Amino acid sequence: MKIAIDAMGGDFAPGEIIKGAVAGAREYGVGIILAGPEETIRAELEKYDTVGLDIEIEHTDEYLVEGEHPAFALRKKRNASIMVATRLVKEGKAAAAIGVGPTGGVFAAALQLLGTLEGLARPVIGGQFLGFAPDTIMIDLGGNVDSRPDQLLDFGIVGMVYARKWMGIPNPTIALLSNGVEEGKGNEVVRETYELFKKSGLNFTGYVEGNDVAHGKANVVICDGFVGNVVAKFCEGLGDVTAGWLEKTLESKMSKAETGEIITALKRATIPADALGGGPLWGVNGVICKAHGRSKAGEVASTIGTAKRAVEIDLVGTFKTELAAVRSGINIPGPNA
Amino acid sequence: MKIAIDAMGGDFAPGEIIKGAVAGAREYGVGIILAGPEETIRAELEKYDTVGLDIEIEHTDEYLVEGEHPAFALRKKRNASIMVATRLVKEGKAAAAIGVGPTGGVFAAALQLLGTLEGLARPVIGGQFLGFAPDTIMIDLGGNVDSRPDQLLDFGIVGMVYARKWMGIPNPTIALLSNGVEEGKGNEVVRETYELFKKSGLNFTGYVEGNDVAHGKANVVICDGFVGNVVAKFCEGLGDVTAGWLEKTLESKMSKAETGEIITALKRATIPADALGGGPLWGVNGVICKAHGRSKAGEVASTIGTAKRAVEIDLVGTFKTELAAVRSGINIPGPNA
Repeated sequence: MKIAIDAMGGDFAPGEIIKGAVAGAREYGVGIILAGPEETIRAELEKYDTVGLDIEIEHTDEYLVEGEHPAFALRKKRNASIMVATRLVKEGKAAAAIGVGPTGGVFAAALQLLGTLEGLARPVIGGQFLGFAPDTIMIDLGGNVDSRPDQLLDFGIVGMVYARKWMGIPNPTIALLSNGVEEGKGNEVVRETYELFKKSGLNFTGYVEGNDVAHGKANVVICDGFVGNVVAKFCEGLGDVTAGWLEKTLESKMSKAETGEIITALKRATIPADALGGGPLWGVNGVICKAHGRSKAGEVASTIGTAKRAVEIDLVGTFKTELAAVRSGINIPGPNA
Repeated sequence: MKIAIDAMGGDFAPGEIIKGAVAGAREYGVGIILAGPEETIRAELEKYDTVGLDIEIEHTDEYLVEGEHPAFALRKKRNASIMVATRLVKEGKAAAAIGVGPTGGVFAAALQLLGTLEGLARPVIGGQFLGFAPDTIMIDLGGNVDSRPDQLLDFGIVGMVYARKWMGIPNPTIALLSNGVEEGKGNEVVRETYELFKKSGLNFTGYVEGNDVAHGKANVVICDGFVGNVVAKFCEGLGDVTAGWLEKTLESKMSKAETGEIITALKRATIPADALGGGPLWGVNGVICKAHGRSKAGEVASTIGTAKRAVEIDLVGTFKTELAAVRSGINIPGPNA
């Protein structure tokens, strides 16, 4: 299996991306195709032991830079590294592609080259972002802002499939994130979406509030990408600040090694980038995984693991089957279907 | 000074409200007027030592119940306990009023009876909700959903005044919460609001992301009430779950008392209800403080302290002066003006 990676995306590209690609190639036993300027990539690769690894370079001089509008920039940069990586999937030369950033660029390339699955208006980003609530996923985490009610319903269907097929939860509960559980709460879109879910036949349990997320009150928590992004990043920031405070507080009470273990566990549980590694873009007609823009080598490597697994279980094919089943109103097949 | 309290609002009414009122009356040396059914209140009051305290009852049989639409319900229940408490402020019989819930009811009563300050479309809820970022406030935390850009700008002005006058920050920075800092990020409303702030003459520093909040990157973080509510409650939930995990993790490593201290500090830093006690409704033409719906006696008591301070520094009068100054484009007077 070959996995294509945009070597030029994210805050720490290309250094950490390439370091992570090497680590991931070894750890998961997959071939890697790095898309980006050949000389730059080669210079980075020379820093590591790549003996016995299947790592190729797909040269391109173009890549997205921070600050430019991704979708707009891609119209000019037809050979931007994220486009090249994604095209390898389209052409069947790679089983999956990984993009680290900017998010909009990963989405735009996937949309332009692969498109969405039938019946889905747009692809979504989601996943388990909180280690303390391992059976809870949140969708959307940033890909879709200003989502319409029917798009939020799509998120619910995708989340249900993911929770069952990827996480092995037989009959996942789906809830809508709101600013209260009482009637009349929610914003305009959320209230309309509530009515759609009620009619959907999904295992919909109603509204959950912000505090319910960490408590794992639902398996699939649905929200607009703006809200999901803010919450996921807030989670990371709070985890980080809490860990810093805890480190100082515990300093005088236990050994440095003991403190270090606790801090590492806390960060792992609260930093989505660490917990997730990277998530597949659900709803795209091919396996495209998006890693956090601040990903370092460790997260890039684990995203390679995620991409490999998505290919192995045929996540995309399963999405298609299940979406068709839900949408046609047929009884949803069991978790082993 | 007399402070009126709706004895029937919130998840733990009337028991915890009345217990907190007694504690607050003693701690802050203020008179209390409890609005609600006299017999019920009297029965609760009998449980405590109230000797030397100035506690009155303003009888009413009506109060809001969970599940009804607050603004709608208040049209029928003209003597709901929150209306009675707020009316005491309007009539000059109380210097401030406290409502514990539902939020919509506290807002609706304030709006109907006191109205907003000139130039403000709606009142807002905000405050320091994170102990780890004591110089950062977020607005709106739940009162206003589907806010328009001009309303979000209002939140910025109110937050600036609050940060200067209440928190003593000379030239507070104001930032807009978004799903990224790059151009093109934000949802439709946030992008429009960005342009408004740029023109406002306020000390506007641009977008901040979710992770910047805990790091205290801006003094005043502006967001729609739906987002603010979800984030504040998420913060509480994550703090709670982290504290539970930490308690177990530290169990074998230190004494129960030492662990208890750390847990208490962590909860205090991450639970908005604990950290805040309760916040004033900014922009209302009178001092109305809203406590978290899940408030117990401790939070009710500290909200009494908050209300007392708001009266003492003439927060409402200062809001009026400062808003007029900002809006007329005159140089904003210094923090001691």
